[in-house]
Amino acid sequence: MTAEIKTRVVDTLRRLLNRNATASLRKIVNKTHPADLASAFHSLSHAQQATLFNLVDDREKQGMLIKKIDTDDLEALVESTNKDVFISILEQIPPDDVADLLERLPEEIGQRILEGMNQESSEEIGELLQYDGQSAGGIMVPEFIALPEETTAKTAISYIQKEHQNVEMTFYLYVVDSRDKLVGVCSLRELVTVAPETPLSGFMTTDIHFVYIDSDQEEVARIVARYDLLAVPVIDHDRKLLGIVTVDDVIDIIRDEATEDILKMVGAGDSFIETKSILKSTKIRLPWLFASCMGGVLATIIIGHFKTTLEQLVFLAAFIPVIMGMGGNVGTQSSTIVVRGLATDRIQLRNMGRVILKEIAVGGILGTVYGLFLGIVAHVGYQMWRLAVVVGASVVFTMLLAAFVGSMLPMMFARFRIDPAVATGPFVTTAIDIMSISLYFSFAKFLFEL
Amino acid sequence: MTAEIKTRVVDTLRRLLNRNATASLRKIVNKTHPADLASAFHSLSHAQQATLFNLVDDREKQGMLIKKIDTDDLEALVESTNKDVFISILEQIPPDDVADLLERLPEEIGQRILEGMNQESSEEIGELLQYDGQSAGGIMVPEFIALPEETTAKTAISYIQKEHQNVEMTFYLYVVDSRDKLVGVCSLRELVTVAPETPLSGFMTTDIHFVYIDSDQEEVARIVARYDLLAVPVIDHDRKLLGIVTVDDVIDIIRDEATEDILKMVGAGDSFIETKSILKSTKIRLPWLFASCMGGVLATIIIGHFKTTLEQLVFLAAFIPVIMGMGGNVGTQSSTIVVRGLATDRIQLRNMGRVILKEIAVGGILGTVYGLFLGIVAHVGYQMWRLAVVVGASVVFTMLLAAFVGSMLPMMFARFRIDPAVATGPFVTTAIDIMSISLYFSFAKFLFEL
Repeated sequence: MTAEIKTRVVDTLRRLLNRNATASLRKIVNKTHPADLASAFHSLSHAQQATLFNLVDDREKQGMLIKKIDTDDLEALVESTNKDVFISILEQIPPDDVADLLERLPEEIGQRILEGMNQESSEEIGELLQYDGQSAGGIMVPEFIALPEETTAKTAISYIQKEHQNVEMTFYLYVVDSRDKLVGVCSLRELVTVAPETPLSGFMTTDIHFVYIDSDQEEVARIVARYDLLAVPVIDHDRKLLGIVTVDDVIDIIRDEATEDILKMVGAGDSFIETKSILKSTKIRLPWLFASCMGGVLATIIIGHFKTTLEQLVFLAAFIPVIMGMGGNVGTQSSTIVVRGLATDRIQLRNMGRVILKEIAVGGILGTVYGLFLGIVAHVGYQMWRLAVVVGASVVFTMLLAAFVGSMLPMMFARFRIDPAVATGPFVTTAIDIMSISLYFSFAKFLFEL
Repeated sequence: MTAEIKTRVVDTLRRLLNRNATASLRKIVNKTHPADLASAFHSLSHAQQATLFNLVDDREKQGMLIKKIDTDDLEALVESTNKDVFISILEQIPPDDVADLLERLPEEIGQRILEGMNQESSEEIGELLQYDGQSAGGIMVPEFIALPEETTAKTAISYIQKEHQNVEMTFYLYVVDSRDKLVGVCSLRELVTVAPETPLSGFMTTDIHFVYIDSDQEEVARIVARYDLLAVPVIDHDRKLLGIVTVDDVIDIIRDEATEDILKMVGAGDSFIETKSILKSTKIRLPWLFASCMGGVLATIIIGHFKTTLEQLVFLAAFIPVIMGMGGNVGTQSSTIVVRGLATDRIQLRNMGRVILKEIAVGGILGTVYGLFLGIVAHVGYQMWRLAVVVGASVVFTMLLAAFVGSMLPMMFARFRIDPAVATGPFVTTAIDIMSISLYFSFAKFLFEL
């Protein structure tokens, strides 16, 4: 099925739900991939979600569905599902996903579910819950294949076939020393192509890409993407192997982190809110707008301060929008480039000076081009060379300063370990608004000798 | 090695390059992963890049390095490398990557390289080059394992061990009918766990996730991410299996598409430009700013049109920044949510009406909150109820309209198959600037009875 056809399945589901056609619904629900059901869930009510969920006959499929739904929906679903049923569904999901689910639920509910699970699972998951959900420890699976270096290829193969059929996505065999420390890695392909009696130490790779248990998930994603890995081992600071993070989870991280960055930059939350209620969306977007509102009020006060200048030169008002706009836009370009560059490793903090200087140069050139252009526009419109100079000079300096502020602020935030994506938006635009207005009226006051 | 340590390797490389310490360089270069070398390349001159490149002793490693470097750098590197050497390096890279590289080079150079390759490779790559580089055909590898349905598990295993050791990332075995049409898929794990004499048709999955040869690469990424696949088969419209796209390429697509969207939204190019020269950066950013500059000029003309109003009520100028700013910010929030929602499948075009209505509601509530607040600010500052009403009402209507325009425009663009990320920025901000200014002065003119 292509995505096109799947979209139509979703439409059908909604139609049948409205008609309460349970028999047809059951048939479709059990034929549809849980990922597609989850995507239909985004646009259904909690009651409809519960109906669909209960029509899924297969516990494993219910488990996959739970993994993929939004946090809000999850909570409602847990409440409307029998606790024992819910626990038996969780037992079908890899432990890292269960830990992730429990973290998304209110602590008390999570605790109750954990207590209801069998001892082995609950201990394993309890251990995962100790780690920060955004760290390697929080996203790893504690199940992997690790064998001593003297094991032969043949023994390793039969071990995998017999004992490890349920390990999630097996690609690599890790090699550990007598103290469980990670010393090498072999791919399953190497395993079947070497002579059967070769010990693992004879063909394992010792230059291993790994992450520490407390590494941030962005770091994990970076390593997997950079070295084209299918899984990355997670170790503690004594090099003891604790788990692996697989590529499918990394894909989700990369997507979510990009969405998070994009939304944070405009103050629209840190995960997707379009499907949330109107009031929730409003609440998320309100505070960021407050910062820019305060900037606007400050601009009002500054203009009020230049009241006498403005009364004598009313035409000055006409160029306020374009000067603020050009500054704001070039500043947003600079800050976006820096924020995304930091996130994707294309810009390093230690090159801060060089990056900022380059942005200033670009801002200066762009400012000169548009300063000249807008100076000419001002002259054509008002036949007043003084105004032309004021407008032109304001544009040049505003754009130059905006490029400086737009590139410098996110790097400063990053240096002090504040997420540059959050802080950049309101700070950069507010700073630029105030600078541009002050510059413009100061130039005017000076040049018109008021 | 962690990323921290790798960064230091990069610093060392640059120091040694400056000192011309060839022997030490050769040693480090050959110990460093090509992905790390490529990341060092971003901040080196073309001459330094060529030096490092030639110090790499292993052709395969040189190939991996070429794959990862920027297009500009690639061209210079090709020019400074002996053609035959370059071709022998390309023979170490999977054909989809070679096709991708050749597409990034000027046509004439690509043609010459293609002609120099051995016939088999050149035909295979020539075929890939027929497809759009952004489509499934352009990113697939034409090498995969496909066997008829009656093949037994045992035969399939020995076939893979003997014949297919070089197939890039083997995870799935595809099952085809007598006309090479895709009918099923088995994982390698299933293959080793069923009874050896079972035919593939006995345990293959027939509900296959696939993409068409002309599907967009974003669609490919979406399918792989949604169903947690390691590879997705690519078929033509007769269901004939032509190739596969692997998860490592999908990770790159997801990253690059996110970066592209983010940068396009602020008119800063479609791939990362921070490392490009100042003039190139300027050239990329100039046109987008022109659109917003024209919007600003239009705002100037509109304000000029309200000249008499402004002359009598000079204080109106003070609120221009805050009204434009609030409109612009809420509009940017709406358009960003819609652009990212469309890209990640959270918003569907067919729900256009619902999405826009919701944005209008959110914009209306936010507008009411900030309209009241700024109305009060105006009253406190100027003790004039008329001004308070004008400011308040302008903020309400501007924010409401901005949310409408900000959500509607990207959806309209998407509907007409124009990339919403490109078009949204300048159109949305310009439209909002003009609307907000017109509204504000019209309200003022009406309420002050001028």
